[in-house]
Amino acid sequence: MEKYQIVFQPSGRRGEVEAGKTVLQAAQSLGVGIEAACGGAMVCGKCKVIPEFGSFEKLGLTSEKANISPLSPVEEKILTTEELEKGVRLACCIQIQGDLVVSVPKKSQSAKQVVLEAGSKRNIVIKPAVKSYFIRLTPPTLEDPTDDQQRLLTAFQKETGIEGAIVDYKVLCGLSRTLRESNWEVTVTLREDKKEIVRVRGGDYSCKLGIAIDIGTTTLAAYLCDLDSGELLQKASRMNSQIGYGEDILSRVSYATGNEEGLQNLHNIIINDINELAGEMTEAIGAKPEDVDEMVLVYNTVMHHLALNLYPGYVGRSPFAPVASHALDIKARDLGIKINPAGWVHSLPIEAGFVGADNMAVVIAEEPYNSDKIKLIIDIGTNGEIDLGNKERLLCTSCATGPALEGAQIKYGMRAAPGAIEGVRIDKETLEPSYKVIGNDTWYPELEITGALGICGSGIIDVFAALYEAGIVGKSGRINGKLNSPRIRKDENGKWEYVLAYAKETAIGQDIVVTQADIRAIQLAKAAIYVGAEYLLNKYGIDHVDEVILAGAFGSYINKKSALTMGMFPDCALENIHAVGNAAGDGARIALLNVDKRREADEIARRVEFVETAAEPDFQDRFMEAIAIPHAKAKFPHVNAE
Amino acid sequence: MEKYQIVFQPSGRRGEVEAGKTVLQAAQSLGVGIEAACGGAMVCGKCKVIPEFGSFEKLGLTSEKANISPLSPVEEKILTTEELEKGVRLACCIQIQGDLVVSVPKKSQSAKQVVLEAGSKRNIVIKPAVKSYFIRLTPPTLEDPTDDQQRLLTAFQKETGIEGAIVDYKVLCGLSRTLRESNWEVTVTLREDKKEIVRVRGGDYSCKLGIAIDIGTTTLAAYLCDLDSGELLQKASRMNSQIGYGEDILSRVSYATGNEEGLQNLHNIIINDINELAGEMTEAIGAKPEDVDEMVLVYNTVMHHLALNLYPGYVGRSPFAPVASHALDIKARDLGIKINPAGWVHSLPIEAGFVGADNMAVVIAEEPYNSDKIKLIIDIGTNGEIDLGNKERLLCTSCATGPALEGAQIKYGMRAAPGAIEGVRIDKETLEPSYKVIGNDTWYPELEITGALGICGSGIIDVFAALYEAGIVGKSGRINGKLNSPRIRKDENGKWEYVLAYAKETAIGQDIVVTQADIRAIQLAKAAIYVGAEYLLNKYGIDHVDEVILAGAFGSYINKKSALTMGMFPDCALENIHAVGNAAGDGARIALLNVDKRREADEIARRVEFVETAAEPDFQDRFMEAIAIPHAKAKFPHVNAE
Repeated sequence: MEKYQIVFQPSGRRGEVEAGKTVLQAAQSLGVGIEAACGGAMVCGKCKVIPEFGSFEKLGLTSEKANISPLSPVEEKILTTEELEKGVRLACCIQIQGDLVVSVPKKSQSAKQVVLEAGSKRNIVIKPAVKSYFIRLTPPTLEDPTDDQQRLLTAFQKETGIEGAIVDYKVLCGLSRTLRESNWEVTVTLREDKKEIVRVRGGDYSCKLGIAIDIGTTTLAAYLCDLDSGELLQKASRMNSQIGYGEDILSRVSYATGNEEGLQNLHNIIINDINELAGEMTEAIGAKPEDVDEMVLVYNTVMHHLALNLYPGYVGRSPFAPVASHALDIKARDLGIKINPAGWVHSLPIEAGFVGADNMAVVIAEEPYNSDKIKLIIDIGTNGEIDLGNKERLLCTSCATGPALEGAQIKYGMRAAPGAIEGVRIDKETLEPSYKVIGNDTWYPELEITGALGICGSGIIDVFAALYEAGIVGKSGRINGKLNSPRIRKDENGKWEYVLAYAKETAIGQDIVVTQADIRAIQLAKAAIYVGAEYLLNKYGIDHVDEVILAGAFGSYINKKSALTMGMFPDCALENIHAVGNAAGDGARIALLNVDKRREADEIARRVEFVETAAEPDFQDRFMEAIAIPHAKAKFPHVNAE
Repeated sequence: MEKYQIVFQPSGRRGEVEAGKTVLQAAQSLGVGIEAACGGAMVCGKCKVIPEFGSFEKLGLTSEKANISPLSPVEEKILTTEELEKGVRLACCIQIQGDLVVSVPKKSQSAKQVVLEAGSKRNIVIKPAVKSYFIRLTPPTLEDPTDDQQRLLTAFQKETGIEGAIVDYKVLCGLSRTLRESNWEVTVTLREDKKEIVRVRGGDYSCKLGIAIDIGTTTLAAYLCDLDSGELLQKASRMNSQIGYGEDILSRVSYATGNEEGLQNLHNIIINDINELAGEMTEAIGAKPEDVDEMVLVYNTVMHHLALNLYPGYVGRSPFAPVASHALDIKARDLGIKINPAGWVHSLPIEAGFVGADNMAVVIAEEPYNSDKIKLIIDIGTNGEIDLGNKERLLCTSCATGPALEGAQIKYGMRAAPGAIEGVRIDKETLEPSYKVIGNDTWYPELEITGALGICGSGIIDVFAALYEAGIVGKSGRINGKLNSPRIRKDENGKWEYVLAYAKETAIGQDIVVTQADIRAIQLAKAAIYVGAEYLLNKYGIDHVDEVILAGAFGSYINKKSALTMGMFPDCALENIHAVGNAAGDGARIALLNVDKRREADEIARRVEFVETAAEPDFQDRFMEAIAIPHAKAKFPHVNAE
């Protein structure tokens, strides 16, 4: 197979690529971050790049027009005339047929994610899965040459009264040296429920480490904890490196099941992310990943399958049966996770095809099942999950919000990263906006050049509510073109749009606008959440909730009033709406520190009533009602009360 | 680090080697077989090679005298004047300082081993560790989207009545596809004692495969069996590739513990041997190694530690405590053994520091503990193990025979390979020998040019007994130099030797002689066995045994009369001496096919009384008595009776 050189600018990342591969595939294999919400399915049009032609002496190669495939019909459809004139192409459509230099415009570069790591204060009873014991052994003699394993087990039983313990194979490998080098005084770490010795360490050693990770489709949030004190020693987060293979889970499933090594690749990628997080966090406290004895993972059902290397081809299609939904304990070494190889990785249970272990983590963190009040818990990650209930009953559903609330499928949408517009107000008189970008506390217009790159989730909700309150957008969601403002204008196709930021303020040299199509996408997303919640209320037989809990990084950034204004969930007094941050991460930590909560999760997961809403006969009617702003039935007293 | 080219002749094996490495190390890393009984410790003097100098145009390199280190004192001491004149060097002593061509004389080439694979007929009750069940499942529906694992377990319990089964993690990985591709009809393989499902295969599939391997220090003997019928489907054997790191176990332990990656290296080597055997045997029946569900391993204590990657530094020194002596079940994937990754590898128990799982295999094959008669079982591999007993009591000991009986430490000793003299007779009148080499049925002198390379174990015992019976060697073991024969002559140091083959008959261009030192080495070896057996008799309180069983490849080739003549074991009627072939391999197969025998082994291993002989106060006296030929106290009626 012929191979060619490819160089990406401005990063200068360079590599060899086989003839016929696309520029997007080349970028993925070289670790060049190019936005590709659809994962290379030629749909989203985010992966805009500009092939550069000429003789690049410094790079030692010549990049010619003949070295790439000609413009495809997909590109002709998606790209504007202006873009085509500038030589913009879609990375997913360009096949490489020779050496190539490619520029990746700033807007197409995937940026580093900001992840909320606060977590709310919760009382956690410390009852970890592993326990340590200091043991003294009698050395062997010619009269008593008992083997090391039996000697250890005998002393262990004598000291602890625990009968029938076993020793993990990997512990045996170095046992003879540890015992002798420590002069037969060791600390034995036991995985209590399995009565399995997972570590023998020389001397009297008390510290035990554990890691909890919330594996999102987009980001991973990791927590390093002292398993004895429960203390949070380190936090770290990073992008899910699978993002290069599609932003949403369906693209990942499609890649995992449509390519021979697809699942294995995605599995390796996420395990590598986990190992890097473990390495980073342990290094920060002067320890090693191998010092970690226990890990807890939470995720949605697809990330569950991908992380555990379970074939995900059926969980995403009717009847949505997962490979395994109960909690799983898997040896770290079997997953390639480089903590203590004898240690265990605990996977929280998943509830149903679309409701994952991350939601179970939210549930054990919020404990609606222990509450008298009825709680509505909305967790919006890349997918939406809703729980409703109290100690009597617990219902849950998932809703196909689409990625709009996280900035995808929005013309100038982007992830919550520096440069993203995250907060918006619009003056009801002048219809002029003020807005704030991540990384800068001063709002426009006080700050003239904002360097805005796009709009992230919370900004989208804010601008949506502001457009409605300013009367620019009506109840139906239509932009009122009759209003007299230069910011309200028609695009090239004659559709109305609102200019949130002019080109000169931004870092992308283009006006950042909110289009009619953007507003439609948000309406669909918020309607999906509303209808999901409404079905749960109906199923429970109630017409209001006592408390609304917004979970997830998104839920923390969000302006509660804006969310209520747009009608994202049924009416609730503003003071009873709470943002709890990454509750899934909190739940993962709770499960790491307390085994009873694991059992609770496995039991509750079976008790939760999953409500399948899309199959309901009146779904379409309800959905149409919910598309209105706020909701057709909303009494909406709280906004004015504020 | 500078690197140089090295080429070995006559094989032509070529590779790159770092400056400063020895020629022996280069040979080991390139897989060139060079005899090195001491493992490169500069002691045995077996690794003779001839560096070639000149410009080798065809090879594209120049080999100069300056490219190797000068003659070392060790070489000056070990090599003869004649050898030094011929340019012979020791591979372990030559450091590489430039490109090099090296000739490996035939005598220094390690030859392929002949392994006895007969096995004796034994009645084995078939009761394997794994059992298969054909299961029909109901496919999931929207009303019942239960996960695949739970669905499988529910159907399994319903069908079999077995409660509480678990599914191995690796089985989960492909489960969803297997179930659907087979239309929900599968064969489930259960590891019964652990209630663990180790395989789910589409359709109704009955065949289950298992492999038993006897891992000797020198050779591996492997057996592929049908676990349902017990049928032996394939046999295979190969050299233990660790042999390049020393012929005896002490050299291996020394390498494993003295080098940073030593243990890991030796572990990888033996696992690779196991995987090659599994690949070879399964391929021969049109299957794959992954089709094998269960494996049983037996070995001596050191090979046990090396194969399982357990640190062997303490099992070989007082008080000889092994890392683990009980039977072990280890996941194949944890060992890197490439059968069914969810399958288990069962390691038979070891008895004591010097008595391994291979002896336990011999014991469960011979079942002395079920016998009224008192049996003396002698298993001579590279190490000697002796069991004595009946249903009342069972004793065992190990004896430091040294490697003489297998051809090492004998001037012209070699392993049992083509070209080895394996049988010898000496005419009592003429003192002329007749002998037979492996690979040829015609005896010398009928066959004039025999192509002999050396003498193997059975040949050594034969020539020893023949020398005694011909009166050439007296009771004390001294060669009678007064006899009138050209074959009895003095060597350059004035010591007597007997010429077994003249240079012109051989393939090595030298006379093959039996030296006074050789005879002393054999005397020490046979005395060690005799004394070991004698102590066991004393301990038991008896003065004779009903049956002598010679086990091991060596024990099958041996001339029973010669062994009795030389006084290798206490007197026993010739008809009650039985050679049973590789009883350790038989025992391994038995344990593979019947789990009750595994339990029996683990129980008997704890019941066997290990007798430590070297510590006894009268050991030296007894040993001196046993050195005489036959034994000082031997009544020796059987030889004449024959």
